[in-house]
Amino acid sequence: MMFQNENSYDIKEKIKSAPVAILPVGAVEAHGHHLPLGTDNILAEIMAIKLAEKVDSFVLPTLPYGQVWSLRNFPGSITVSNQSIINMIVDIGKSLYQQGFSTFVMLNGHLGNQNALKDAARVLYDTVPELKTFYFFYPGMNKYAGEIRENTASHDVYFHACEIETSYMLYLSPTDVEMDKAVNDIPVIPMDADSTPTPWENFTSSAVLGDATAATAEKGKYILERVIMNMVNILLNTKEDDYDS
Amino acid sequence: MMFQNENSYDIKEKIKSAPVAILPVGAVEAHGHHLPLGTDNILAEIMAIKLAEKVDSFVLPTLPYGQVWSLRNFPGSITVSNQSIINMIVDIGKSLYQQGFSTFVMLNGHLGNQNALKDAARVLYDTVPELKTFYFFYPGMNKYAGEIRENTASHDVYFHACEIETSYMLYLSPTDVEMDKAVNDIPVIPMDADSTPTPWENFTSSAVLGDATAATAEKGKYILERVIMNMVNILLNTKEDDYDS
Amino acid sequence: MMFQNENSYDIKEKIKSAPVAILPVGAVEAHGHHLPLGTDNILAEIMAIKLAEKVDSFVLPTLPYGQVWSLRNFPGSITVSNQSIINMIVDIGKSLYQQGFSTFVMLNGHLGNQNALKDAARVLYDTVPELKTFYFFYPGMNKYAGEIRENTASHDVYFHACEIETSYMLYLSPTDVEMDKAVNDIPVIPMDADSTPTPWENFTSSAVLGDATAATAEKGKYILERVIMNMVNILLNTKEDDYDS
Amino acid sequence: MMFQNENSYDIKEKIKSAPVAILPVGAVEAHGHHLPLGTDNILAEIMAIKLAEKVDSFVLPTLPYGQVWSLRNFPGSITVSNQSIINMIVDIGKSLYQQGFSTFVMLNGHLGNQNALKDAARVLYDTVPELKTFYFFYPGMNKYAGEIRENTASHDVYFHACEIETSYMLYLSPTDVEMDKAVNDIPVIPMDADSTPTPWENFTSSAVLGDATAATAEKGKYILERVIMNMVNILLNTKEDDYDS
Amino acid sequence: MMFQNENSYDIKEKIKSAPVAILPVGAVEAHGHHLPLGTDNILAEIMAIKLAEKVDSFVLPTLPYGQVWSLRNFPGSITVSNQSIINMIVDIGKSLYQQGFSTFVMLNGHLGNQNALKDAARVLYDTVPELKTFYFFYPGMNKYAGEIRENTASHDVYFHACEIETSYMLYLSPTDVEMDKAVNDIPVIPMDADSTPTPWENFTSSAVLGDATAATAEKGKYILERVIMNMVNILLNTKEDDYDS
Amino acid sequence: MMFQNENSYDIKEKIKSAPVAILPVGAVEAHGHHLPLGTDNILAEIMAIKLAEKVDSFVLPTLPYGQVWSLRNFPGSITVSNQSIINMIVDIGKSLYQQGFSTFVMLNGHLGNQNALKDAARVLYDTVPELKTFYFFYPGMNKYAGEIRENTASHDVYFHACEIETSYMLYLSPTDVEMDKAVNDIPVIPMDADSTPTPWENFTSSAVLGDATAATAEKGKYILERVIMNMVNILLNTKEDDYDS
Repeated sequence: MMFQNENSYDIKEKIKSAPVAILPVGAVEAHGHHLPLGTDNILAEIMAIKLAEKVDSFVLPTLPYGQVWSLRNFPGSITVSNQSIINMIVDIGKSLYQQGFSTFVMLNGHLGNQNALKDAARVLYDTVPELKTFYFFYPGMNKYAGEIRENTASHDVYFHACEIETSYMLYLSPTDVEMDKAVNDIPVIPMDADSTPTPWENFTSSAVLGDATAATAEKGKYILERVIMNMVNILLNTKEDDYDS
Repeated sequence: MMFQNENSYDIKEKIKSAPVAILPVGAVEAHGHHLPLGTDNILAEIMAIKLAEKVDSFVLPTLPYGQVWSLRNFPGSITVSNQSIINMIVDIGKSLYQQGFSTFVMLNGHLGNQNALKDAARVLYDTVPELKTFYFFYPGMNKYAGEIRENTASHDVYFHACEIETSYMLYLSPTDVEMDKAVNDIPVIPMDADSTPTPWENFTSSAVLGDATAATAEKGKYILERVIMNMVNILLNTKEDDYDS
Repeated sequence: MMFQNENSYDIKEKIKSAPVAILPVGAVEAHGHHLPLGTDNILAEIMAIKLAEKVDSFVLPTLPYGQVWSLRNFPGSITVSNQSIINMIVDIGKSLYQQGFSTFVMLNGHLGNQNALKDAARVLYDTVPELKTFYFFYPGMNKYAGEIRENTASHDVYFHACEIETSYMLYLSPTDVEMDKAVNDIPVIPMDADSTPTPWENFTSSAVLGDATAATAEKGKYILERVIMNMVNILLNTKEDDYDS
Repeated sequence: MMFQNENSYDIKEKIKSAPVAILPVGAVEAHGHHLPLGTDNILAEIMAIKLAEKVDSFVLPTLPYGQVWSLRNFPGSITVSNQSIINMIVDIGKSLYQQGFSTFVMLNGHLGNQNALKDAARVLYDTVPELKTFYFFYPGMNKYAGEIRENTASHDVYFHACEIETSYMLYLSPTDVEMDKAVNDIPVIPMDADSTPTPWENFTSSAVLGDATAATAEKGKYILERVIMNMVNILLNTKEDDYDS
Repeated sequence: MMFQNENSYDIKEKIKSAPVAILPVGAVEAHGHHLPLGTDNILAEIMAIKLAEKVDSFVLPTLPYGQVWSLRNFPGSITVSNQSIINMIVDIGKSLYQQGFSTFVMLNGHLGNQNALKDAARVLYDTVPELKTFYFFYPGMNKYAGEIRENTASHDVYFHACEIETSYMLYLSPTDVEMDKAVNDIPVIPMDADSTPTPWENFTSSAVLGDATAATAEKGKYILERVIMNMVNILLNTKEDDYDS
Repeated sequence: MMFQNENSYDIKEKIKSAPVAILPVGAVEAHGHHLPLGTDNILAEIMAIKLAEKVDSFVLPTLPYGQVWSLRNFPGSITVSNQSIINMIVDIGKSLYQQGFSTFVMLNGHLGNQNALKDAARVLYDTVPELKTFYFFYPGMNKYAGEIRENTASHDVYFHACEIETSYMLYLSPTDVEMDKAVNDIPVIPMDADSTPTPWENFTSSAVLGDATAATAEKGKYILERVIMNMVNILLNTKEDDYDS
């Protein structure tokens, strides 16, 4: 299942029978006191494995650097440009197609990457149209989060190191969470944050956008099981009625 | 108020007293039977004028070509790449800064441009940090649309040639609307539309995402007056409590 | 005739019967006291309409930003790079070809754009060779201007806000001209202006290269009627003997 | 020591006391029957940890995609362009510098990356000159390999899935080696391989450039202990006399 | 005088006393039967030497590849893109500035290069403003050619392998001319050649734009002595009244 | 044999019978007191002629600007970027292919160019695969130099203005060598020179990497005759057994 553990001689036939490649994409980014810098990489990688358990496929090595513009000034964040991501993803996609893959799934754990991944997918759509390309960022999570969230979100799109993301980590990688350091910090995001470049240090010192203390593994499980099922349904083209973006 | 009607000798002092430049950004794009291809340009331009009436500023000539990937295969659509938009916006922003402007407002009428404008604004943030840059796409409209919409939206982010956008046109440029051609066409957007490149011809033949027949000038007025007030508040840094993205 | 006023459903058939798209290209640039910053946009747009009256075609929305290197330091000028123009023009051209157009006419009102437009046309020639592309900058005007000019030109190629261009405006858009502010200012252009980067503030403070007071609508009409006829002849492939570049 | 396991609040002070970041860089590439596709990633990552044990520093997440032009047509290889690598490395380097690192070590496990890493280091040298940047590819290994190699190398620069690299794996990650599948395959590399683009399928079907059956963990240990000591000496600026490139 | 014949130790002081570098720029391009493919290189190089005899300066090695779009389909032509030329010229200019030169003269023998050289000069103007940069293409030649030409030109800007250029070669490098193969071939350049991409095979089979048989060394001498004096005057900032572009 | 001396009418048939183009590529670079700045250009050009005497082919004009990063701060050096070289080489290669050449030989006299030439060759391999492309940098010289060198080299890859390169010049262009100025200067190249950006002024003030006083024309002849024979064998596909890179 882990692509890089395969050898060159067996892999040719294996790709023929499971021509789906899953690329975890994350970032190194500040996630408060209680979560590690690699949170988005950890989540993307474990989610990819869970998806591969349900859809016959290979998990590629994680691309662990992402676009972290908003949090680039927080300690430990490493940011790369959208264009650098696009170029590398397009190269990988073309190479996968040459290797016989028919489906390329980017399983993204960092919202800041999503536009670059979408742009890369469109480039691949035009250059290797036979390759089906996906860029997943927790499909359907807004609905499920709304069903179980105890605190209102700071923002209708952003979620970060909060009740939700911490729950993901408690479910998928609990030993990487230090719940005793979790804080409840619901910042007031300024009115113009969606309309002008706004580094997050302008409105938060913790980089936590919510009540991390309310996180539980059960909440993480509730959302992510459904998210994974949505990915499965999309890839296998089934049960569309169950989905709500 | 219209920048290109000014002459070179008066403008220098005028910029000093009103150093805010508003650039309408739109697109040429299919908008069903009942709306013209230039709908986004028309809306952006009139909105810019309305904003300039409330904030002392200049309206630049409209940049009328946008990123129309999703609808590029519909008759009459013209699409340019994100990168082409970014490059031109960055050039314009630098030039405005050289001319003495302190604030550059992109008033965007086409959702497909929004990522490019955001990227351009970030480039300007890093290269001419003294220039304050905004990229407005109907700030706050989701809330107001929710308050008066009679039909549910097809999608939580996209709206197009529908009850809402047609109402905008009925309010701002009624002679450009042929309501007798308006249709009620609420497509089922496939589950994977947010996760894989999805040309809109895959799910709609009309390019209308809703019930255009329910549009009224009053609805347009209700939303856009509030949207403009949000822009004004952001630019003048007032009444933040009133805003809901 | 104005492309953006058409709707998506009628336009498909209309393009088939009139597959010629005219793109006015101008600039925002200092033009002395008596002419507005948008002079080149105004001229390009009206010329495009006049051409469309004679050749069955569509007028696209004006691309109003041009390469204004020489005058970029004059109040009100906005400059974009050659490369930004080339990229956007190439995108537009490819899109027009996809839409069924067979001829793409750039009607340019600003000399500084001409090299970029020529380069863009060559890119299109190689990438979509079935698309016939033109970049018109007042074809034949040197001959006609020579026939009626009362004052010698400052430069054999450049003309700007002078007897000639002011005459164009008096003919095409007289309400945009303030003749009482027109000046006679024939600068001595330094010997090396064609051989080294030379901002125009080096040799003129008015940005007028000639005797604007000598301008008349009749002169504008004399030249531009012939210029338009040259465009028509080129597009319809007729009366070649009448032309002198 | 693993950077992504740190959290944002402790890391700021930690970087101050250990301002050295080590980036393992590898590739996904065919390595014969007996070694996995991720061999270069595995080697780079373990070497980075060993180096970090001797030099106070942080190990960044591995960049697992490399330039695999020569072997791109072998099953399982994934190749990205030099330019994609350069762009991403430069972004990472600038970000590390912003975070307070003074030294950026690229620990490269794949020869094909070396030119891109060198170019990236030169860009960083010019743009963030205060950042000291290194690109290590087994410094000194040629000498040590020569001392213990039982079979002559196929090529004076290339080594691949052979006695040497297999020995590295037997030393660092023995469970990833299937020695029963190791082969002795010393190809004749054509005379022009250094002078014209030469995909390796032209001269080998196994992608093994030597006698993998002669590999032992002891050989790997002999070379790599010395290689690591060379890295340490370079970083700490000690014992230069011991080095032979 | 020839820069590449100098050695590194003497050159530092020599640059201080003669900080002017002349770069001949030419092309490999079809020039009819009677002139060699390297005509533009030969002319640029000899002109550079003649200029250096009058202005204390160094002649750099010739950049012998130019933009030959119009004649690229004629046997023997080699074309490179404008962007390739710009990039290389900008690199060279920056390097010359680092070396202590204060003036960079591009002595161009090929009209097709002129736009690229102008663009490169503008980039240098903005990035190393202390470097004075010139791009000479026979300054003033139109006036002098008009004074002695026996045949009218085919085009008001283009001249090629004709009475004029052949005269240049007869004056500067007569052994490279085969006058017995010279032809009189004055093509009718189509009306739209300045307005649409027009490969020259559309209107000439000889690649000669005029009456090469009318060429004489005296004519070449007449024009080029004046052209060189113009260059000298521009560089030394003297006798401006004598110049007519 | 010299391509630029041919005319456009004869060349078409001549290319058919000798479809091999040799491009000398060099640099302007400090080479100590005793060798000129253009040493690499001189060597590349004479070597190209010698090769053309043995393989029916054409010698193109020399590309005389190279990547001189390491010595860019020495007096007289001119450096251009890898990317500038790649772009120009790719353009030239495509143009040669259009002209009917089947083989494109880059005969490189400057080690710093080699990576750029290799990259350009790979681009051409993918874009015009029918064109066979070579990038020669003294193939086999290490072996022959080892056989006759009297002094050990400073570095296993770099050689510069030393016993070897001076011998090349004494053999190929003795009048360009001032042996009375030759020095014996064998620097200690620091341990990290292959692992971090290292301008050569860090370890040498002469730019000579060896004992130039030991150079003789005989040594140059010994090596270069064999080097040329290697090139011939590669191009004619003969005597492979004789080669040792």
